[in-house]
Amino acid sequence: MPPAPPSVIQLHAADNVAVAAKTLARGEDFSVGGGAVTAAAEVRFGHKIALTAIAAGAPIHKYGQVIGYATRAISLGEHVHSHNLHLGELHLDYASASETPAPPAPITGRTFDGYLRADGRAGTRNYIAVISTVNCSASVAKYVAHAFDERRLADFPNIDGVIPFTHQSGCAMQFGGDAHQTLNRVMAGIARHPNIGGYLLIGLGCETGAMGYLVQQERLVQLDGSADQPAGAPLILSMQDQGGTAKTIEAGVARLVEMLPRVNDVRRQAIPASEIVLATECGGSDAYSGVTANPAVGAAADRIVAAGGISMLAETPEIFGAEQLLTRRAINVAVADKLIERIEWWKSYVGMFGVQLDNNPSPGNKEGGLTTIAEKSLGAVAKAGGTALVDVLQYAEAPTARGLMVMDTPGYDPASVTGMVAGGANVVVFTTGRGSCFGCKPTPSIKIATNTPMYERMVDDMDINAGEILQGVSVDAMGAKIFEEILAVASGKSTKSEALGIGEEEFVPWLVGPTL
Amino acid sequence: MPPAPPSVIQLHAADNVAVAAKTLARGEDFSVGGGAVTAAAEVRFGHKIALTAIAAGAPIHKYGQVIGYATRAISLGEHVHSHNLHLGELHLDYASASETPAPPAPITGRTFDGYLRADGRAGTRNYIAVISTVNCSASVAKYVAHAFDERRLADFPNIDGVIPFTHQSGCAMQFGGDAHQTLNRVMAGIARHPNIGGYLLIGLGCETGAMGYLVQQERLVQLDGSADQPAGAPLILSMQDQGGTAKTIEAGVARLVEMLPRVNDVRRQAIPASEIVLATECGGSDAYSGVTANPAVGAAADRIVAAGGISMLAETPEIFGAEQLLTRRAINVAVADKLIERIEWWKSYVGMFGVQLDNNPSPGNKEGGLTTIAEKSLGAVAKAGGTALVDVLQYAEAPTARGLMVMDTPGYDPASVTGMVAGGANVVVFTTGRGSCFGCKPTPSIKIATNTPMYERMVDDMDINAGEILQGVSVDAMGAKIFEEILAVASGKSTKSEALGIGEEEFVPWLVGPTL
Ligand SMILES: [Ca+2]
Ligand SMILES: [Ca+2]
Ligand SMILES: [Ca+2]
Ligand SMILES: [Ca+2]
Ligand SMILES: [Ca+2]
Repeated sequence: MPPAPPSVIQLHAADNVAVAAKTLARGEDFSVGGGAVTAAAEVRFGHKIALTAIAAGAPIHKYGQVIGYATRAISLGEHVHSHNLHLGELHLDYASASETPAPPAPITGRTFDGYLRADGRAGTRNYIAVISTVNCSASVAKYVAHAFDERRLADFPNIDGVIPFTHQSGCAMQFGGDAHQTLNRVMAGIARHPNIGGYLLIGLGCETGAMGYLVQQERLVQLDGSADQPAGAPLILSMQDQGGTAKTIEAGVARLVEMLPRVNDVRRQAIPASEIVLATECGGSDAYSGVTANPAVGAAADRIVAAGGISMLAETPEIFGAEQLLTRRAINVAVADKLIERIEWWKSYVGMFGVQLDNNPSPGNKEGGLTTIAEKSLGAVAKAGGTALVDVLQYAEAPTARGLMVMDTPGYDPASVTGMVAGGANVVVFTTGRGSCFGCKPTPSIKIATNTPMYERMVDDMDINAGEILQGVSVDAMGAKIFEEILAVASGKSTKSEALGIGEEEFVPWLVGPTL
Repeated sequence: MPPAPPSVIQLHAADNVAVAAKTLARGEDFSVGGGAVTAAAEVRFGHKIALTAIAAGAPIHKYGQVIGYATRAISLGEHVHSHNLHLGELHLDYASASETPAPPAPITGRTFDGYLRADGRAGTRNYIAVISTVNCSASVAKYVAHAFDERRLADFPNIDGVIPFTHQSGCAMQFGGDAHQTLNRVMAGIARHPNIGGYLLIGLGCETGAMGYLVQQERLVQLDGSADQPAGAPLILSMQDQGGTAKTIEAGVARLVEMLPRVNDVRRQAIPASEIVLATECGGSDAYSGVTANPAVGAAADRIVAAGGISMLAETPEIFGAEQLLTRRAINVAVADKLIERIEWWKSYVGMFGVQLDNNPSPGNKEGGLTTIAEKSLGAVAKAGGTALVDVLQYAEAPTARGLMVMDTPGYDPASVTGMVAGGANVVVFTTGRGSCFGCKPTPSIKIATNTPMYERMVDDMDINAGEILQGVSVDAMGAKIFEEILAVASGKSTKSEALGIGEEEFVPWLVGPTL
């Protein structure tokens, strides 16, 4: 039986603040690390309380790290938040590749039941994609895909569904520019995703994001079905060539009808756990994200890496302020430099708009008790576990190494996960404190609650309750549980968001650059 | 009976190029303005041909305006395009308000059958809106709206449907910044649109684009039904408060079920044509856009203004290069200055990304024969007709004047039209040469083909064939036809895109600023 729940959690012995594990009333006494503290005011669940008197200008420590500086003198037992804590000048020491960890002890013999694809990658689902290359063909793509309801797929039990991938861009951008190339990488990443058994591209015809250029630049081929199918040219429909909306829908449905038997002709088989490509994400964070769910995901990610697989950390703006933890762990200086270059790009990019990265904690985050970007970043980076950083990927880039890597994405959940999924992620783990209901076809997303009250309130959407850590379950035991859930979901177990049908609206390619 | 179709069209007597009205073979002879010309090479339909010898560096005239300069000597009968024509330094003379036209002769006594709303504006449709304030609630908004299919609305014949307004943003942006304010203006513009009889806002709960802030800043009230209903607080659902996806869908459906009888309780009545708020747009332009459909829309827009209504010209990047035509027509210097300020903003904005506005003609435009932004802009500005420019609106801003106004939007069709619709447009006219299949709920969109071959190939999507101008129908007669179609559609006649069910995917709020 676990011990009684604590009043507060001190994350590191050197910390001068603790996190309230429940709402502390004004005047409430508790002990922490052998010392007695009295709450000087109400301190809500997830917020910070001072464990010592802190002088004006002195650093605030959490996770054993500096998360910012006191803006005025803070008394023992005082609530610590935006009114008396700011980020200040956090001087980072990148110390690139100075502390590269040794590889973890290998995990061997673990498998999942997946789909082996012609390129050797493993699918965890078997969908058909109808990809709209521009918003002008989005409605047509949607109508083609939605023609294949459960009834129409009844004879094809190995097909999980037909997904329309529609978005709000694809034209009025610079031809061949960064935005165009990035969008092409996303669409190609979906087309060749191991969870996609066959695909159809639909465009209007006159858009900047021309289909011919996409197919040529990204060397797209159609795989259509099981691994022993020959590769061929991708299926493409131009609405202007077809003669408009109705004729394109008709032609698209006919193409997919032909495709169904081939895509259905696959079977799940035992595949080593090394073929898991894990995307990690947090959204709607609270003060417990970095205390419960994120460290537990880190423990699961360490197991994926130990099994020979890939784990991705993303959300570069949320890494900002804690990137020195990753540069030190890089396998070499070049990898660390890639990360530093991305951080610098972000500073310059948001600076163009007069925006600062430390604006990142949302009103919801602040309400939940997070004060500075450093504090939030340290909590977010916990999802990366403790293994070496082996690479830094562009948005939607497919990995060529194995191990822990960073993909450069915004923190915004759907844009971030879309990048990792387009890069080939076949399982997503998504931690949330305030309660996100995210899902992302074609990849299953395991949602992990950081706290029990939210888990119970939103149990229809949450897969795992990492709030149990606050009741005494160890982070490592929770990590083991998440690892098992990853293998089960990879083998076909439905996540909550899949059962609810979430995941089409959440295809959100990241847009950088002006809409003309 | 109209005269035989011409080989080329010379748009202005002073022009040194003409536009091919059909593909001219190499060596083909024709006469224009009394002179004989032989095509020196094949000149395709829509492309330009030299009517005189033109010296290197000399200006090229079309519409009686300079569209650029010869990069080398051009012979009589030579094809004129990117290989021998560039924009060069077009020196604009704004001459603000120097040529303000007198008001047009009033058109009186014309009406349409619309819905009179409590705020005095006129609806042309009667929809219910389910507005998702952030991508995190998009799937829920979609499921709530799609629960109301034809069967479920069978007892409510005055309701045109329930529309989910979903988008890809709403969080990971600066709280209260320009992007946030713009998005709020769009969502509020939909909520209070005269074509919306009632609405429901759905958010996740922790997003930057908080619903409380939206309702407060935009002073939203619920109108729910006919003009004699009392105003009340807007209906809002937070997924985090409701307990997740399934419970929010259930609650949302229940709220709409209650709303249906009130929203259904409206009747069409005769309303003066002065209540038409016309949005004009071009997309997938070709060389005929500026020769047939756009001038014809301009003639229709002049009639709307003459009837006391509002006509909006948008697509600022496509105005670039021809803005001096509008500044001269401004009612005062302040209005001209507003337009110049927006042009300067665009130059600076795209310059941040190393992009130039003159990149705007898409590969499709160039293929169709358009060479420079000035040429394309002159063609686009033709949609503005000939009346005075009375105001320049922010994106999604509601007009307070009547007459011709510019709204600052990108050229990108769905983003541009979304801004005008959010600003209150109750009819859209959309010209297309290459063949766009655009539609935009809740506002009907009349699609006007610039040429007969495309009209015939895509007749399922096209409402009007302005290509008849090439067969001898006058621009003014075509403008009169479009004016009549506007009144018919405003009175309930279905457009092609409405019949096809287009218009949900095309809700695309313009995003400026970084996604964090
Ligand atoms: Ca396949
Ligand atoms: Ca995130
Ligand atoms: Ca959508
Ligand atoms: Ca109403
Ligand atoms: Ca346009």
